[in-house]
Amino acid sequence: MPKPTDSKEKTLAAAARLFRRQGFHGTALQDILAAGGAPRGSLYFHFPGGKEEIGEAALTMAGEATRQGIARAAEASESAEAFVARIARRMASDLEESGFHDGCPIATTALETSAQSEALGMATRNIFRNWEGEIARGLQRFGIAAEDAEEMAEIMLAQLEGALLLARTYRDPTPLRRAEQALKLLLSAWPTK
Amino acid sequence: MPKPTDSKEKTLAAAARLFRRQGFHGTALQDILAAGGAPRGSLYFHFPGGKEEIGEAALTMAGEATRQGIARAAEASESAEAFVARIARRMASDLEESGFHDGCPIATTALETSAQSEALGMATRNIFRNWEGEIARGLQRFGIAAEDAEEMAEIMLAQLEGALLLARTYRDPTPLRRAEQALKLLLSAWPTK
Repeated sequence: MPKPTDSKEKTLAAAARLFRRQGFHGTALQDILAAGGAPRGSLYFHFPGGKEEIGEAALTMAGEATRQGIARAAEASESAEAFVARIARRMASDLEESGFHDGCPIATTALETSAQSEALGMATRNIFRNWEGEIARGLQRFGIAAEDAEEMAEIMLAQLEGALLLARTYRDPTPLRRAEQALKLLLSAWPTK
Repeated sequence: MPKPTDSKEKTLAAAARLFRRQGFHGTALQDILAAGGAPRGSLYFHFPGGKEEIGEAALTMAGEATRQGIARAAEASESAEAFVARIARRMASDLEESGFHDGCPIATTALETSAQSEALGMATRNIFRNWEGEIARGLQRFGIAAEDAEEMAEIMLAQLEGALLLARTYRDPTPLRRAEQALKLLLSAWPTK
């Protein structure tokens, strides 16, 4: 019999997968139970706040995994250009290998709930801010000044998120390939102060 | 008593507004009826395919209005830079004036349904492609070659969509202001072949 913590983690992992593929409102509690294999009672025990509480915890977990992936991409890269390419290509391969199902783990829920749920609005806001911060730290590793890195990080996250949205909708990774080109061009053209 | 066409158009306008603010799955048929003021019978008469059919028609209508807005922005602009600025600022003002509710009319539904509904996947794909085409036509007005314009249009749409996602989630228009800066820089740095 799994320990409570296992069942909690399995539930969150299943919820994060479902929210990524079909959004928050498109995922019923029943779907999360079926996918996570947890008994209904354990779900109410671990998440007395219901679906919103599961959403907050699942997104935060998925967001943290992505933040760590950004940090690893920076460590494994020899230039800002290589760092950007690594992130864009990882997004493209996740998308393609999942048959164009696995886009951004956060964006769908952010768009669905930002106007409705304070808890989920706050969670998605914090996750995107953390990603921006990690991209900015990565850029600073390659000698980009803190203030420039902060602005560029927001521009990069926007370019990549928008490209992922288009690539998923088109079922074609081209927008992510072009995002990589655009961001490399931006890095070379950025006016240093 | 309204004519059937009035009631059909009102229903579609109400549906488009709701899908924009809270997504496809977060909007119940009941919400569309309440917001559009149409009797339930007229809804089934006009849209025998139910919510998916309403979604397809409402998104197509909203997408066409945006496409026309892009065309007008190009006509009213004297340079590619001014064209880009006009689009980004319009997105920012729509967002701010609606209390950060009115983001992209298509993106939420595209993310929610692209993996699930062939009809909605196709509709959202066509709308984004039409916007790209209209941006590319706009860029060509300012002397940019067709092939470059096509690539740049996709990059621009991705940058603006991603910035709108972040701006809405942050409740702060800064990402759209930075997207405008980035796209102007891209225009100046683009290697002409």
